[in-house]
Amino acid sequence: MRALTIAPGVTGSLRVEDVPDPVPGANDLLVEALALGVCGTDREIADGEYGWAPPGRDRLILGHESLGRVREAPEGSGFTAGDLVVGIVRRPDPEPCGACAHGEFDMCRNGQYTERGIKEIDGFGSELWTIEKDYAVKLAPSLEEVGVLMEPATVLAKVWDQIERIGTRAWYGPRTVLVTGAGPIGLLAALFARRRDLEVHVFDRVADGPKPELVRDLGGTYHTGDVIEVAERIAPDIVVEATGVSEVAVAVMTTNGPAGIVCLTGVTPTGRPLRIDAGTLNRNIVLENDLIFGSVNANRRHYEQAATALDEADHDWLKRLITRRIPLERAHEAFEPGDDIKVVLDFRK
Amino acid sequence: MRALTIAPGVTGSLRVEDVPDPVPGANDLLVEALALGVCGTDREIADGEYGWAPPGRDRLILGHESLGRVREAPEGSGFTAGDLVVGIVRRPDPEPCGACAHGEFDMCRNGQYTERGIKEIDGFGSELWTIEKDYAVKLAPSLEEVGVLMEPATVLAKVWDQIERIGTRAWYGPRTVLVTGAGPIGLLAALFARRRDLEVHVFDRVADGPKPELVRDLGGTYHTGDVIEVAERIAPDIVVEATGVSEVAVAVMTTNGPAGIVCLTGVTPTGRPLRIDAGTLNRNIVLENDLIFGSVNANRRHYEQAATALDEADHDWLKRLITRRIPLERAHEAFEPGDDIKVVLDFRK
Repeated sequence: MRALTIAPGVTGSLRVEDVPDPVPGANDLLVEALALGVCGTDREIADGEYGWAPPGRDRLILGHESLGRVREAPEGSGFTAGDLVVGIVRRPDPEPCGACAHGEFDMCRNGQYTERGIKEIDGFGSELWTIEKDYAVKLAPSLEEVGVLMEPATVLAKVWDQIERIGTRAWYGPRTVLVTGAGPIGLLAALFARRRDLEVHVFDRVADGPKPELVRDLGGTYHTGDVIEVAERIAPDIVVEATGVSEVAVAVMTTNGPAGIVCLTGVTPTGRPLRIDAGTLNRNIVLENDLIFGSVNANRRHYEQAATALDEADHDWLKRLITRRIPLERAHEAFEPGDDIKVVLDFRK
Repeated sequence: MRALTIAPGVTGSLRVEDVPDPVPGANDLLVEALALGVCGTDREIADGEYGWAPPGRDRLILGHESLGRVREAPEGSGFTAGDLVVGIVRRPDPEPCGACAHGEFDMCRNGQYTERGIKEIDGFGSELWTIEKDYAVKLAPSLEEVGVLMEPATVLAKVWDQIERIGTRAWYGPRTVLVTGAGPIGLLAALFARRRDLEVHVFDRVADGPKPELVRDLGGTYHTGDVIEVAERIAPDIVVEATGVSEVAVAVMTTNGPAGIVCLTGVTPTGRPLRIDAGTLNRNIVLENDLIFGSVNANRRHYEQAATALDEADHDWLKRLITRRIPLERAHEAFEPGDDIKVVLDFRK
């Protein structure tokens, strides 16, 4: 079969090549790929800056934003041929930490997890893939066109699950949400906020293209310009930071509403010092009872929440997040800079 | 009666002077002061950098760390003459925000609260004071010598209440705590951590004086030197930052254990830019699911938790936190720089 592979740590090593077909184990589904989403982590791996090959190998099959159709399923697995399916990305270590032992491998304490397409296990960027039945998530058949948004949606399911649990630290009652960055994570953050009937504001640096309309069609307000001015004016109860730009992250950490909850989701590059007023940052956090947390990955509970959220969302709106579909053989185009919201490799093309 | 007063905003305006005796309302207790703790906020007010006088007046009676003995109490108030009592500091606005309406005025959303001895209501720095029965907290009689530590203890009761509620965002299971700063807040943070049977480490810049012994007598480990090196080595599950030094706050925000919870309690000065690697700060928070929150003030629930914690603690250990007792007439000495842990004005002297 054809697969998208990379030698982690080696720039320019991305290629589409023939690899042996996977052989499902007794508890595995065999899945035909339908689509694969490409994200910033994939680009970081393609640039040789992140990622680990499986032990004893040089190359890794890339890809963790999966969507496929079951070809074969073990009896009693709850799956049958034809089901739409998405694979969970992270696996706990066989000797799990406390969080992993409780199924919360997204909160792993010892870093000994592995991840499909990122860390030591092949990903979903191949015509066929296998998945352990306990790490497969079934989607409603109507999600064939947009189910590839599941993995990013699980990130937001976790973000909102955590925001609401954190909210129990005291009286909660949020009204306004500011999302910084109108990429796939930011727009899905806005979708999840609207599901909770919150007033949604989205900040992004671009004023044109499809983003403003996508936000307005959700019932949100779109902002460009100076993020500090926007955050001061709105004084949001909740911020979801999804630009991954240090200056924006520091701005929303410093400027938000009283008892504000700020969730950071963007992975920033390191080693670029910034002059900040750390005294004001710390003082505001203390005197306003502010809270900042980071969120990465998702566990099975969040996949199930995301499957429900996508099923209940406007599928036409979700489709508009996928601004480009590329056949596997032209996969390299998905790694070139551009103005896309979400680029997807389409295995049906 | 004699009282410690200040003209907020005016440096050098602190003085002990005669003021009229307070007149208790129908729902108020009349209280004879026993002791008053002095903290960084009081020093900031004394320096003219913080604080608000009551409307229509120039001067404010200072002091919010109270301890007194009831002289008169309304019938049915639950108090009788002779009871040890502490006054709650903050009052909600008559038109409360959502948090204040639920009794959580420590999490006030609109900033319209007032505070005894800080914001628009006279404090407890006078020979007599009154307190509304609903804002009075009774202490066990055995706490006469150390009950003046109640207000700082309520700060930690809230910190730990919030840490444990925040912990429900996922599997919790903390083992190690790092406290930065071995002042009253830091040492009480360590006491509250030991009540939860956690492994406690306390970092402070001074290597001599009573602090190392106080930490060891709690069963904790005392550290000096480089805070980043200490935080990296311990990788604490929980950090309570109590130095109020920006460099230390940024260090523990960046360096802590996976899924670390960092509580900031120190009020830092503003306007002193620091060069930090904001990319690494943000990236670590995201990729490790770290959480940082600020905590200020406390509500009635926390006063009750603190009263229990002080009652159950080793009173001799608590006494050692009070390194100087000064009579009211020499109050200015409590505002001079020194190596004290806690300075207290003693109204019995």
